[in-house]
Amino acid sequence: MAQNVPKKQMAQVIEKTGGPVEFKEIDVQQPGPDEVLVNIKFSGVCHTDLHAVNGDWPLPTKLPLVGGHEGAGVVVAKGDLVKDIEIGDHAGVKWINGSCLACSFCQQSDEPLCPHALLSGYTVDGTFQQYCIAKAAHVARLHKDIPLDAVAPVLCAGITVYKGLKESGARPGQTVAIVGAGGGLGSLAQQYAKAMGLRVIAIDTGDEKKKMSLEQLGASTFVDFSTSKNLVKDVQNATEDGLGPHAVILVAVNEKPFQQAAEYVRPRGTVICIGLPAGAYLKAPVFETVIKMVTIRGSYVGNRKDSAEAIEFFRRGLIKAPFKVVGLSELESVYDKMKAGAIAGRYVLDTSK
Amino acid sequence: MAQNVPKKQMAQVIEKTGGPVEFKEIDVQQPGPDEVLVNIKFSGVCHTDLHAVNGDWPLPTKLPLVGGHEGAGVVVAKGDLVKDIEIGDHAGVKWINGSCLACSFCQQSDEPLCPHALLSGYTVDGTFQQYCIAKAAHVARLHKDIPLDAVAPVLCAGITVYKGLKESGARPGQTVAIVGAGGGLGSLAQQYAKAMGLRVIAIDTGDEKKKMSLEQLGASTFVDFSTSKNLVKDVQNATEDGLGPHAVILVAVNEKPFQQAAEYVRPRGTVICIGLPAGAYLKAPVFETVIKMVTIRGSYVGNRKDSAEAIEFFRRGLIKAPFKVVGLSELESVYDKMKAGAIAGRYVLDTSK
Amino acid sequence: MAQNVPKKQMAQVIEKTGGPVEFKEIDVQQPGPDEVLVNIKFSGVCHTDLHAVNGDWPLPTKLPLVGGHEGAGVVVAKGDLVKDIEIGDHAGVKWINGSCLACSFCQQSDEPLCPHALLSGYTVDGTFQQYCIAKAAHVARLHKDIPLDAVAPVLCAGITVYKGLKESGARPGQTVAIVGAGGGLGSLAQQYAKAMGLRVIAIDTGDEKKKMSLEQLGASTFVDFSTSKNLVKDVQNATEDGLGPHAVILVAVNEKPFQQAAEYVRPRGTVICIGLPAGAYLKAPVFETVIKMVTIRGSYVGNRKDSAEAIEFFRRGLIKAPFKVVGLSELESVYDKMKAGAIAGRYVLDTSK
Amino acid sequence: MAQNVPKKQMAQVIEKTGGPVEFKEIDVQQPGPDEVLVNIKFSGVCHTDLHAVNGDWPLPTKLPLVGGHEGAGVVVAKGDLVKDIEIGDHAGVKWINGSCLACSFCQQSDEPLCPHALLSGYTVDGTFQQYCIAKAAHVARLHKDIPLDAVAPVLCAGITVYKGLKESGARPGQTVAIVGAGGGLGSLAQQYAKAMGLRVIAIDTGDEKKKMSLEQLGASTFVDFSTSKNLVKDVQNATEDGLGPHAVILVAVNEKPFQQAAEYVRPRGTVICIGLPAGAYLKAPVFETVIKMVTIRGSYVGNRKDSAEAIEFFRRGLIKAPFKVVGLSELESVYDKMKAGAIAGRYVLDTSK
Repeated sequence: MAQNVPKKQMAQVIEKTGGPVEFKEIDVQQPGPDEVLVNIKFSGVCHTDLHAVNGDWPLPTKLPLVGGHEGAGVVVAKGDLVKDIEIGDHAGVKWINGSCLACSFCQQSDEPLCPHALLSGYTVDGTFQQYCIAKAAHVARLHKDIPLDAVAPVLCAGITVYKGLKESGARPGQTVAIVGAGGGLGSLAQQYAKAMGLRVIAIDTGDEKKKMSLEQLGASTFVDFSTSKNLVKDVQNATEDGLGPHAVILVAVNEKPFQQAAEYVRPRGTVICIGLPAGAYLKAPVFETVIKMVTIRGSYVGNRKDSAEAIEFFRRGLIKAPFKVVGLSELESVYDKMKAGAIAGRYVLDTSK
Repeated sequence: MAQNVPKKQMAQVIEKTGGPVEFKEIDVQQPGPDEVLVNIKFSGVCHTDLHAVNGDWPLPTKLPLVGGHEGAGVVVAKGDLVKDIEIGDHAGVKWINGSCLACSFCQQSDEPLCPHALLSGYTVDGTFQQYCIAKAAHVARLHKDIPLDAVAPVLCAGITVYKGLKESGARPGQTVAIVGAGGGLGSLAQQYAKAMGLRVIAIDTGDEKKKMSLEQLGASTFVDFSTSKNLVKDVQNATEDGLGPHAVILVAVNEKPFQQAAEYVRPRGTVICIGLPAGAYLKAPVFETVIKMVTIRGSYVGNRKDSAEAIEFFRRGLIKAPFKVVGLSELESVYDKMKAGAIAGRYVLDTSK
Repeated sequence: MAQNVPKKQMAQVIEKTGGPVEFKEIDVQQPGPDEVLVNIKFSGVCHTDLHAVNGDWPLPTKLPLVGGHEGAGVVVAKGDLVKDIEIGDHAGVKWINGSCLACSFCQQSDEPLCPHALLSGYTVDGTFQQYCIAKAAHVARLHKDIPLDAVAPVLCAGITVYKGLKESGARPGQTVAIVGAGGGLGSLAQQYAKAMGLRVIAIDTGDEKKKMSLEQLGASTFVDFSTSKNLVKDVQNATEDGLGPHAVILVAVNEKPFQQAAEYVRPRGTVICIGLPAGAYLKAPVFETVIKMVTIRGSYVGNRKDSAEAIEFFRRGLIKAPFKVVGLSELESVYDKMKAGAIAGRYVLDTSK
Repeated sequence: MAQNVPKKQMAQVIEKTGGPVEFKEIDVQQPGPDEVLVNIKFSGVCHTDLHAVNGDWPLPTKLPLVGGHEGAGVVVAKGDLVKDIEIGDHAGVKWINGSCLACSFCQQSDEPLCPHALLSGYTVDGTFQQYCIAKAAHVARLHKDIPLDAVAPVLCAGITVYKGLKESGARPGQTVAIVGAGGGLGSLAQQYAKAMGLRVIAIDTGDEKKKMSLEQLGASTFVDFSTSKNLVKDVQNATEDGLGPHAVILVAVNEKPFQQAAEYVRPRGTVICIGLPAGAYLKAPVFETVIKMVTIRGSYVGNRKDSAEAIEFFRRGLIKAPFKVVGLSELESVYDKMKAGAIAGRYVLDTSK
C-alpha cells in the first residue's frame, strides 16, 4: 500500500533534553494497521517545540526525539485498517498524533484529554522530518486547494484559538476581548472571532499592532495596555453598554492580565485561558467572581471536529496567517530567534531543504 | 385592597453600621402599585445578616435598616398592578427583593445580576419585622401545604445551593463533591444533589458529620479532610474510575480547599464557588487548569425560576433543613451564638414573639 | 411627565372582523404606571395585520381594533414606575406589547409564551395610530442613529428570523438552508445568517431572486425549487461533504417543503418552522426522523433579548430591508396589494400622512 | 492472544429473508486487529430481530445472518491493537457493533449516525451464537458484579430509553410523560426517569400496568388512554401548574399518540420519538407547534458514553428489567410468541442450551 517511499530521510533530532537539535539522516518508519505515513512538505515551528527541547514542562518527552507538530504533506503509505484515506491525499499532522478512541474522554469527543494521547514531537516523533507517522483517525484531512505551507501554522495555533473561542460560549453579535491580540495566536484569534460573527476588542501595545488589528484583523477597538490609564474602564467602555465584553481570550496567561480580565469581563461572562507559561497561577477575588457569576475556563487544543472546522475557515479564505519559509536544516537558527523574542509571524520549515 | 393591616408593628432595627439591633415598634409601610405587603410569620437568620450589621462587605447597606431575607408569611395587601397574587396567598421574601425586569440581565433571567436589584435586609428593609414590602414579581409563591417555619431557610440557603448545583452542569448519574458538606449549606446541598440524581462525595471532618452525611443526607462517600493523608487521591478514588468528581461545590470558599478542588476535579469538570468570605482569593495553576480544561465558576443566588424549583423539591419532602425557632425579639442572642460559631442548623425567628 | 401630547389623533380602526379599516380621529390614551406612550412615526405592515382583519386565526382579536405591531417612534409620556426610559427616547413597539413578567415563562425569558401576553394590533391597540401605549419593559430601545422608517420591518420580521436562526442551534461556519429565501422574511434571514457567520443555501425560484441572493444577500448557493430535478440531492450537494445543511429555516411552512426539509437536513440537524399558515400540518416519516435524529422545532417571535440583538445587527449596518413609505391613510390600498400578492419588500406607513 | 476457543459453535442462522431461523453448527471467527471475540453467555431478543428476519425495514440485512444485538459475555480473544480490554473481561455486544471512529459523526460522538456503522445481527453477525466478533472500541465494558443474563435487555432497550430521556433535555424536578409506559421500553423508561430525578406521568392502559407503574416503577400519576375522556386535559392536569409535561417520550410512535403529545406537552417542551414502526408518520399542526415553540426530535440508540451511563445506573441497582431465560435453541418459539403479541417482559437466550 505504499508509494515510492525511501528507506532513509533527513530529520532534526534531539538526543538529550536541553538540545541541541541535530540535522541528520534517519530511518523512515512503517505505519501500523491503523496508521498513515505522511510525507511532510512543510512544518510550522511553535513555542511548544522549544519547551520540548528545554524540558521545562512537567511532562517528560521521548528521547531521542524528532520535534514538530504542525506538519502538512501527502499520505504515502497506510495500514490495512485505514479505509477513508487514500495514498496521495493531503493530510496534516497535529499535536494530538493519536488517542485511544475508547476511553471516557475519547467517547465524549475530548481526545485531547485522553490519558493515552500521543503527542507529536513530544511523546512520539513529530514533523521535523520528511516522513512522519500518525494515527489515521487523527490526521487532519486537507482539501487539495489548501496550500501546504500556509496551512501549517493553522494546524496548531489556528485550531487552538478557534477552540478557545468556541469554549468561550460567545455568540454572534457579542463582544470578545483578546489579550495579546497582536501576537501569533492573537492575530489568528482576531480573524477567527470576526469570521464567527463576534466583535473584537484587541488588547496589546504599540501603534503597529493597533493599525494591524483595526485595519487588517477585524477588531472594532484597540486598547493599548501600556498607555491606558485605566485598562478595566477602557475595555468596558469599548462595549456599547459599558458592561464589558462577553468573553475574554487570554492567549498568554500571566497573573496581572488574568486578574484584570476577571474584573472587566461582563457579569456572566467567561475568561478563557490558553497558553501554558511554566509556573503561572490564576488568581481572582472570590467576592467579585461570585456576585458577577464569572466563569474561568482553561482551553487546551482542539479535538478533531474543532480542527476540521478551523481548517475550513482557513480554506474559505477568511484567515490569513503571515509566515516565512526556511529550510528544515535551519531549525536551530529559528530557535535562536525565538529565544531572542525576535519573531513576528510564524516560521515554516520546508522539509526538502 | 388590604386586609386588617395594623399601622404599627415590631421590628429589629440597625441604626448604625456595627449594630446593635434594637427590637422596637415602627410604622407598617404601604405597598406601591407593583408591590405586595407580606405579613412575615417566620424569618431565617443567615450569615449575610451579620455581614449587614458589621458592614464588612464592599457594598454599603441602607441605614437605619431592618435586616433579614428569609421570610415566609401571608400576603395582606397589594398594589393595583398586581394581578397574579391574591390577598391571603402565602409568599416568601428572598434576598432579591426586586429588580428592574428590563435590563439586559433581567431580560436573560439573571435578575440577581440586575444593577438595580433591591436586596432584602440590605438595601431595602427586610424580614426581621412583622410586615415587609417586596416586589410582587419577585416574592416566592408558596403552596399552602408548605410549613412557613421550615421553609424559611430554604428561601436563601436552599435556593443558593440548588443554583450552584445547576450551574455545575453535573448530570444525573454523575458525581459531585461537596466541600463543607456537614454545614448548613452543605447539608442542604447533599440532599438537593441526591434529589437531582447525582452521587455525592461529602468532604468535611468529624464522625458526627460523617454519620449524618452517609446515613441521612445521601452521600455515597465521606472524606475527612483532617484525617486524610492525601485528600486529592482520596476524593478521586471515591469515584468509580478514579478520575475524580464531575463537579465540586465549595460552600465556603477558602484558598486551600479551592486549590485542592481544582486538582481533584475530573478533566472537563467544574468547580463552583458559593459563599462570600471577605478578602479571599481563588488561585489555580495555569498549566493544569488548561490541559485539564477545568471550569471555575462563581455562583451567586438563584433567579426566580431556580427559587420556584428549589422550593418545589422541598415541598415534595425531598429536603429536610433542621432549624430551631426563637422569638424575633431574641435576634441579638442569635447573632451572639453565630459570632461564637455555636450554631448547628438554622435559627428561625417567630415574628409574633 | 408628558410632552405636548394632543388629546386627539388619526388612526386606522377595524370596527368588525372582516374589515374594512377606517381612517379616523380617535382619543389619545394615557399610559398606566408601568407603561409608555410612544408617538409612532412609522409602522410596518405585516401579513399578521391582515390575519387580524380577517379573523382567520384560532385566536380572536379585540374589537374595535387599531392594528399594527412594527411601530417606531418617540416616547412622549410614561408612568411613575418607569425609571429606565426618558421622554424623548426612541422606542419600538413590537408584537409582544407586554407580558406579566412573573409567570414561569416570563421567568425563563420566554415572554412570547406568557399566557397573559398583550399582542399589539391584536389583543390591544397597535401602531396604526399616531400615539400608541406599550408596557415600558417591552418596548425596544432604539439608538438615535437608527432611522425610524427603516427599522420598522426589523421590529417584527427581522427579530422573528433572527430568533429562528438562534433556535436552530447552527454555529458559525455551519450551513443553513433558507426556504423562501427571496421573500420578505427570507431576504432578512439570509442577511442575519451571514452576519452570524453561517453559510447560506437560498431556496426559492426565479432568476431575480437568485441574483439578489447570491450578489446582495450573502448566499453561497441558490437552489431553484421549480427547476431542480432532485431538490433533496441538490441541497445536499450544496454542502461541502454532501451531507446536507445543519439547519433549515422554513419561513413559510407548507407541507411539501417541510417534508423535503426533513429529508435533506443533515443527520442531527434541525428544521425550524416559522410562519403561521392557517390549517397547515407538519408531516415527517418516523423512521428517517428517528435514525437521523432530526429535530423539528417551532419558532415564534423573539423575546426582548433577541429583539435587542436583532436590532443591534441592523444598527451596525449588516442588515438591509427594502421598504416603501406611504401614508397611514393609505393602509387599505396596502392590504389590497397584499391580498393580490403584489408586494415585493415591506410597506411602511408614515403616520403623519 | 486467545483462550480455549473452539473451532465450531452453535448459532441461529437466517439463510433467506423471511426466515426461518435454523439452529446449527457454524465456524467460530477470528477477531481482526481492532476487534474482540466475545463468548456470548446470554442474549436478549428484541423486536428489531424480528424486523431483520422479516426484512420489512428500508435497510437490507446481510445474508446468511446470525441475528441478535443484546449479548453479554466474556472476552476470549482480541486483536493486536486492543490495549484496554483483557482476555477474561466481561463485555456487552450492542446494536452498534462498530463504527469508523473518524467521520464527522464519530468525531462528535454520534457513532450511531456513522454511515459506516456495523449493526450487530443486521449488517454483521450478531449475538445469537456462542462466539461473536465486535469492534473493541464499541463493546460495552461490564463490571464483574453485573449479572450477564439480567443486563442483556439493558444493552439495547435500556440504553435506548436512557438516550431518549437525555435527548429530551428534561432536568431533575421536571415532569416527563411516557407513552406506552407499561411495555418493555416504557417500564425501563419509567425507572431511568426516576433515577434521573424526573417526575413521571405514565400513559398506558389497564389496572395491572397502572399498579406496576405507580407501585414499582416510580410514576407519580397514571393516565389510562382507553378510559380517559380527555387525554390532553388529563395529562396536563397531572402537572402541578396544569401546563403539561416538560417532555414526552413516545416509545412506540403512532400517529394519534404523537399528535396528542404535541398538544399536551408544555410550551417549549420536547416530544421524543423512539421506536421505528414501519411506514408511520409524524403529523402536527403548524400553528400550535410554532406559537408553543414545541420541539419534536427523533432519538435513535445511545452512543458509547450513553451506553456506559445507562449500564452504570443498572449496576447501581436502580433499574430492574423483568426477563425470562430460555435456551438459544428455542429462538423460533420466542419469535412466535412475539408475533402473537404474547410477551410480557424480555426473553433472554442462554447460549449454552
